[in-house]
Amino acid sequence: MKALEGLRVIELCHAYNGPFCCMLLADQGAEVLKIEPPEGDQCRDFIPFHTNGGESAFYTYLNRNKKGGTLNLKHPKALELFYALVKTADVVVENYRSGVAKKLKVDYETLRGINPRIIYAAGSGFGQRGPLAHRPCYDMVAQAMGGMISLTGYPDAPPVKCGPSVADNVTGTFLCVGVLTALLHREKTGKGQMVDVSMVDTIFSLLENAIPLHTANGVIAERKGNIDPTIAPFDVFEARDGYVAMGVGTDKLFRSMCEAMDMPRLAEDPRYADNGLRVKNYLPGLRDTINNWARTKTKAELERIFEQAGVPCGPVLNIKEAIEHPHIQAREMMVHIEHPTAGDCYVQGVPIKLSETPGSVDTPAPLLGQHTGEIFGLTGEQVARLKDEGVL
Amino acid sequence: MKALEGLRVIELCHAYNGPFCCMLLADQGAEVLKIEPPEGDQCRDFIPFHTNGGESAFYTYLNRNKKGGTLNLKHPKALELFYALVKTADVVVENYRSGVAKKLKVDYETLRGINPRIIYAAGSGFGQRGPLAHRPCYDMVAQAMGGMISLTGYPDAPPVKCGPSVADNVTGTFLCVGVLTALLHREKTGKGQMVDVSMVDTIFSLLENAIPLHTANGVIAERKGNIDPTIAPFDVFEARDGYVAMGVGTDKLFRSMCEAMDMPRLAEDPRYADNGLRVKNYLPGLRDTINNWARTKTKAELERIFEQAGVPCGPVLNIKEAIEHPHIQAREMMVHIEHPTAGDCYVQGVPIKLSETPGSVDTPAPLLGQHTGEIFGLTGEQVARLKDEGVL
Repeated sequence: MKALEGLRVIELCHAYNGPFCCMLLADQGAEVLKIEPPEGDQCRDFIPFHTNGGESAFYTYLNRNKKGGTLNLKHPKALELFYALVKTADVVVENYRSGVAKKLKVDYETLRGINPRIIYAAGSGFGQRGPLAHRPCYDMVAQAMGGMISLTGYPDAPPVKCGPSVADNVTGTFLCVGVLTALLHREKTGKGQMVDVSMVDTIFSLLENAIPLHTANGVIAERKGNIDPTIAPFDVFEARDGYVAMGVGTDKLFRSMCEAMDMPRLAEDPRYADNGLRVKNYLPGLRDTINNWARTKTKAELERIFEQAGVPCGPVLNIKEAIEHPHIQAREMMVHIEHPTAGDCYVQGVPIKLSETPGSVDTPAPLLGQHTGEIFGLTGEQVARLKDEGVL
Repeated sequence: MKALEGLRVIELCHAYNGPFCCMLLADQGAEVLKIEPPEGDQCRDFIPFHTNGGESAFYTYLNRNKKGGTLNLKHPKALELFYALVKTADVVVENYRSGVAKKLKVDYETLRGINPRIIYAAGSGFGQRGPLAHRPCYDMVAQAMGGMISLTGYPDAPPVKCGPSVADNVTGTFLCVGVLTALLHREKTGKGQMVDVSMVDTIFSLLENAIPLHTANGVIAERKGNIDPTIAPFDVFEARDGYVAMGVGTDKLFRSMCEAMDMPRLAEDPRYADNGLRVKNYLPGLRDTINNWARTKTKAELERIFEQAGVPCGPVLNIKEAIEHPHIQAREMMVHIEHPTAGDCYVQGVPIKLSETPGSVDTPAPLLGQHTGEIFGLTGEQVARLKDEGVL
């Protein structure tokens, strides 16, 4: 048995943040019914595609463990089918631009009238209220306006976004926290409610120390590459064959580092006597010393040397190296699943590991409309007729 | 009433990922009892400090809404007090390095013997099992080994971490999802369990398309600055007074962009006729065209022009601009709280917005040991004596 078995979730989502939320729920056993428009979630057209069957591998990753049906919500008969489904559901997750759900008559006010116990979660770029709520958004725009881009990159180059779409990812995760919180509240009161999470708010919530640095000290934090403004050494160093991240947060660790580098005199250098001095004198002296030494070693050598010394350290892995890493594999962070057209799929595993009810990847992402009949209780003949009518 | 009122959480955490998890719970009404060692969470020494009272502003942000007590867990009497508290609690969250909780006798096996209903959540660098489970970690090391650093930065410069500590942040959020999931399961079964989340797994889970790109097509994704490998134009452009993020995901939006730039002929250029061609021909031609035009405008002008055209766009805000932005303010993403020694504090608000039971920031972070007596049911005299004995 999985933890969320018996929970019925309707996913009225496209692309990324809402589907990520529902993936987290589905991995833990929720029954997620993904309702797509007849032309499919736009994500079905996102590269890369499986070499067999032509499905988007992005879609098949993000929508594993879900069932899929289609509805043309602009058709009145489709709305009837949808409202009947809402009566049976615990949660609806949508990620339309603010205002679109209302136009489609699938907004919270409408659905709570049908099922007052419903938890309605909306993920969007700018949220359901506020002066910019109506604006379209992409992950990068949220990273820009939320303040993250200003904090990422090297000082001598333009600012840069965090590579992966963390505004989408984490908005999906915050939505999931909101849904589960609302469900626990409903256990006590029987009442549903709405969850509103915006990508810009999400990014802003991830800025940690940069905010108090301004509110308490008036400092505007800026991008510093891999350097930590408060700890030194804490950086990515150049090995012979790539890069290695290494950090030293205490005087004791600094001594361990110097011993590991076979440079005991470095530990005695008065310029580096404590963390405050190391932060002050890190550039260029201390960094150059470490870099010049590191360049004579391979990533694997550095990892071994620092591990033995108890110094937090790890190589900058590329995607292939990360996927194939024995630790990632041992943690089942890559799992195999058989897809009806794509065949063998290897997808990210379940990062939230529960001891008694472990989540897992059990069923492949749905083909377009695969479970339409099952979801709406329709025969194959009825599905065919409603398709012809433009309802499904 | 808040959603999680009545939920009792023991926070046995330091620094960032565990405390972030407990902050999300406390914001929604959980009673979080933060148990610090007598010398305090190391985070109390993290800059910046409030100009009044000398408290760490990082600590006061991250620990709002919590109560705080101290325990020296190496003292047998402290363990007795702790075990008695565990009997009254729903959740324990810890973020020791894997193995330390067991040494301290506060591991899951021990605590479930005392309270079988307990949900025990552990956040760590490498997780509770796997070949590297024993290793120390920092956020940057997890970003490196999880694959994120290889995807961030410009191709002609070394790779760079995402500025904010997303490995910590999101591990805390995943922990929170795990705790809430386990609580819903306990509602049905009465049984507790353990939640294991690692920073490396977390980062790996955020890589989205980069993983299927390798598993389905054998491609090793690399850092591309702000460019999206599948959409063009999608980039950060140079304005007269800073940078602006702008993206165009469809042909229709591309035409809107060209009209907004007053360059209708650009929309007719066969090199940019569809998204595939735009991706192929983006560098250097299309990017230069947009950049040269953008450089003649201010950020505010670009924002207005693109907003009117319906093109997703937003300025790269620095921290001050983000904090003061009317939308961030309207969404209550910055809130005021009065702290007994620091006075006026302005901290990040609650990003997960529930309609019927809104979370909020109500009480300031605890002074060291402020609620020790209340938490353990001790008189002031007993607290003083136990402090002398080295228990608290």
